[in-house]
Amino acid sequence: MGQTITEKIFAAHLRDTPTPGNMVLDIDVIMCHEITTPIAIMDLMEKGMDRVCDPSRIKAVIDHVTPPKDSKTATQAKIMRDWARRHNIKDFFDIGRNGVCHALFPEKGFIRPGNTVIMGDSHTCTHGAFGAFAAGVGTTDLEVGILKGVCAFRAPKSLKIEVIGTLPKGVVAKDIILNIIKQLTVNGGTDMVIEFCGPVIDAMSMASRMTLCNMAVEAGATSGVCQPDLVTAQYLWPFIQDEYASPEAAAQDFAKWRSDADAVYERVLTVDVSTLAPQVTYGFKPDLVKDVTEMEGTKIDQVYIGSCTNGRIEDIREAAAIIKGKTIADSVRGILVPATPAIYSQALEEGLIKIFMDSGFCVLNPTCGACLGMSSGVLADGEVCASTTNRNFNGRMGKGGTVHLMSPASAAAAAVTGTITDPRRFLH
Amino acid sequence: MGQTITEKIFAAHLRDTPTPGNMVLDIDVIMCHEITTPIAIMDLMEKGMDRVCDPSRIKAVIDHVTPPKDSKTATQAKIMRDWARRHNIKDFFDIGRNGVCHALFPEKGFIRPGNTVIMGDSHTCTHGAFGAFAAGVGTTDLEVGILKGVCAFRAPKSLKIEVIGTLPKGVVAKDIILNIIKQLTVNGGTDMVIEFCGPVIDAMSMASRMTLCNMAVEAGATSGVCQPDLVTAQYLWPFIQDEYASPEAAAQDFAKWRSDADAVYERVLTVDVSTLAPQVTYGFKPDLVKDVTEMEGTKIDQVYIGSCTNGRIEDIREAAAIIKGKTIADSVRGILVPATPAIYSQALEEGLIKIFMDSGFCVLNPTCGACLGMSSGVLADGEVCASTTNRNFNGRMGKGGTVHLMSPASAAAAAVTGTITDPRRFLH
Repeated sequence: MGQTITEKIFAAHLRDTPTPGNMVLDIDVIMCHEITTPIAIMDLMEKGMDRVCDPSRIKAVIDHVTPPKDSKTATQAKIMRDWARRHNIKDFFDIGRNGVCHALFPEKGFIRPGNTVIMGDSHTCTHGAFGAFAAGVGTTDLEVGILKGVCAFRAPKSLKIEVIGTLPKGVVAKDIILNIIKQLTVNGGTDMVIEFCGPVIDAMSMASRMTLCNMAVEAGATSGVCQPDLVTAQYLWPFIQDEYASPEAAAQDFAKWRSDADAVYERVLTVDVSTLAPQVTYGFKPDLVKDVTEMEGTKIDQVYIGSCTNGRIEDIREAAAIIKGKTIADSVRGILVPATPAIYSQALEEGLIKIFMDSGFCVLNPTCGACLGMSSGVLADGEVCASTTNRNFNGRMGKGGTVHLMSPASAAAAAVTGTITDPRRFLH
Repeated sequence: MGQTITEKIFAAHLRDTPTPGNMVLDIDVIMCHEITTPIAIMDLMEKGMDRVCDPSRIKAVIDHVTPPKDSKTATQAKIMRDWARRHNIKDFFDIGRNGVCHALFPEKGFIRPGNTVIMGDSHTCTHGAFGAFAAGVGTTDLEVGILKGVCAFRAPKSLKIEVIGTLPKGVVAKDIILNIIKQLTVNGGTDMVIEFCGPVIDAMSMASRMTLCNMAVEAGATSGVCQPDLVTAQYLWPFIQDEYASPEAAAQDFAKWRSDADAVYERVLTVDVSTLAPQVTYGFKPDLVKDVTEMEGTKIDQVYIGSCTNGRIEDIREAAAIIKGKTIADSVRGILVPATPAIYSQALEEGLIKIFMDSGFCVLNPTCGACLGMSSGVLADGEVCASTTNRNFNGRMGKGGTVHLMSPASAAAAAVTGTITDPRRFLH
C-alpha cells in the first residue's frame, strides 16, 4: 500500500511509538518567537533544565511585537536574546534583522522537503509548502522539543485537495484557500494534514504555496503540505547548490517524499478554480466567505497588507499594481508591512515602497503587529479592516473591530475606494 | 526702551491683562496630538462645550503611538479623528500622512515669525526656531485654547545666549544645546524664554535651530526662540511666495519681530563653540553632560535615531555619512525613525534608507515612539540606549533603562562600535 507524503516523513523520523496511534518524531527544525518561547525558557530555567538539544536546529526570531511596545514585550525580547547568546543559537534574528517567522525562515533556507518542523505558533503549517511536516505546538511540546529534539504526534490522516482548472485573471492563491476553507468549514480538516495538489498547485510559486499552507489551520487541520518539485528546488537552490548538480537533480531527489499514487486519504476534494471570483470573509469565522461581488460597498476604515499569509514580495507587487499612481481614500488608513527585511529591501529596489508611500500608505518595519492585534495598527471599537492576514476572529485586530480577509489585490482595491471592491475593476 | 522678540510678540497678541504680570494672548496656532488632546476633547464634550474657536487655527496629528499599539491608543486616535471630522479641521494628519508633530507642522508651513503657538506637549518650544512664541500647556489651557483661541501667560523674561566662534568639524547643534544645558542646569531657564543668537545661530539651518529650541525646555525654560531672518524666509518660501516679492523681502518684513539692540534681558550668556567636543549625557538629567571623549567605551544595547530633536533629513544624512558601507555591531539594535513621511521619502530618494537597512538598522514609520517609552523600541530593565532624543530621565525609554543623549553622528558611531564613540573618528 502506498504512502502519503506525511506518512513518509513520519516513518523517516519515527523515534518511538509509546502507545498505539501515537508517534514520537525526531524534529529537524525547532522555531521560536518571543511570544511563546520565553514562557518555555523560563519554565526550563526554573526546572534547572536550561539546555538545548542542538543549537543548530533552533531558529529564533523576535517578530510579534518589534521593536518592543512596552516593558513587558521588551523583557520577552530580552529573555529570547539572552537565551540565544547563552546557548550559542546562531540563527537568532534580532531587531533590524528580524521579520515575520513564517516568511523569514523559508527565505533563509531553513526548511527542506521531508523535514519535521515545530513552533509554538498556529501558522507553523506554512512551512508545509516545502514538502515538510510543520505543526504548531503548545508550551510543553515546545519545551520537550528544545530539550530533546523530539515531539509526539498522532499518526497522520490526510485530506487531499486537488486544485484543477484555469485560474482567472485577478484571482490568486488567497482566493483559492478562502474558498477551500468555505467548502471545508473551520472543522473540516480536524486531525488531518491537508495535501494540496493538482495542476494549479504545480504551477504555483513557493509564495503562493505558502499562502495556501498558511491557512490550512483555519480549516482545523494539523498542517498543510505541498509536494516538493522543481519549483521547490529552484527556490532552495542558493542553499542546496553544494548538495546537488542542478535544481532538476534536487527535484528528482525530493521526489522520494512525494505521495504515492496509491496512497490512502481520509477524504479527497476536487476544486475547479476556473470560475472562481476573488473571495472575501464576513463575520468572525474564516469559513464565512463570499464572492467579492457580494460584499462590494462595505465601508472600511483600515487596510492592512502584510503578515505570514500575504506579506511577501509577490503580494506587495500584486497590491502595488493597483495602488500605483493613485491616492488612497481619505477615509482609509493604509498600512503596508513587508514581512522581512529582504522583502522590504526588494520592494525598495523595485520602487514599490515609494508607490505605497506616495499613495498615502504608512509603511512599517517587518512585524506580525496588527494581524493579531498586538501592535502596529490595532483597531478601535467599531472599526473595520480589509486585511490580507489569516484570521477574522471577533476582536482579532482589536476589541470591537471587524476584519475582512482577502487577497493583496482586493485589499489594495479597498484602499483606493474606501469600500470592499472587486480588484478586477482595476485590471486592464 | 527696546523690546525682545518675545515682548514684541506678546504685545502684538495681547487680549487682556487680568492681573498685573498676567497676559492673555490671542493664539495663532493650536497644535494637537493624540495623547493630550483626547482628554481635553472628552472633557469639553462632557461640559456640553464641544466647539472649536476656528478650525483653521487647529493643527492635529496622531504621532505618539502610531499605528496604535493597543485598544487604548486606537481609541485615543479615534477620538481625535472623529473630532477633526466633526469640526472640519482640515489640517488633521492621520496614519500614513502623519509624523512627529514638531517636525511635521514646520514642514507644512504652519508657523510664521511673530506667531503664538500652544500645544499640550513639552517640546512645543521647537517652533520658536521660526521667531515665534511657542509653549507647551496643560489640559485646561489647551481646552481654553481650543474653545476661545486664547491662552494666559506670565509677562515674559528673556535669557539671551549668544553663540560665537567657529563650530569644529563633527560638532553640531545638538552638541551646542547639550553644552548650554550643562552650563545653565535644568533650572537655569525657569520662567524665561531662551533667545538663541549670535553668528553661529545666524549661520544655522532651520533644522539646527529647531534642535536648539526643542531642548530649551530641558533647561527649564518656557520656550526657546531664534531671530527670524533670510534662512527663515527661505525655509518658508513655498508657503509665503504669494505674500512677498522675494525671500529677501520676506526677511525684511520678518525683521520687525527681531529683538531691539537695547532690549533688556534677565541674563546674557556667551558661548564660544570653537573648542567644543561632541557632547553626551550621563545619568538621568539632561544637564549631566560630558565630552564624548570622557564617555568612550560605555557599552550600549540600542541606538535610536529620530524624534522631534533629531529626526529630520539633515540628521539622517549626518548619521548615514558614518553608517554608510558599514555593518552595525552585533550586540546593538539600531532603530531609525524619520520624523515625517516627507523626510522618509526624501531619505528614500537619496538612498539613505537603503544605507541604514543594509547596515542592519530597523527603519520605522514616522512616530514619537520610543523617545518617551510609549512604543517602537522600549528598553528592558538594565538596557542602555544611545539616542538622539531630548530626555534622559530615569525610565524615559523604558523602566530600568538608561538613555545617553547625543547627536545623530555620535549615535551612528555608537551603532558601529557598540559603545559610545567619538564620531570624529569616522570623519575624513
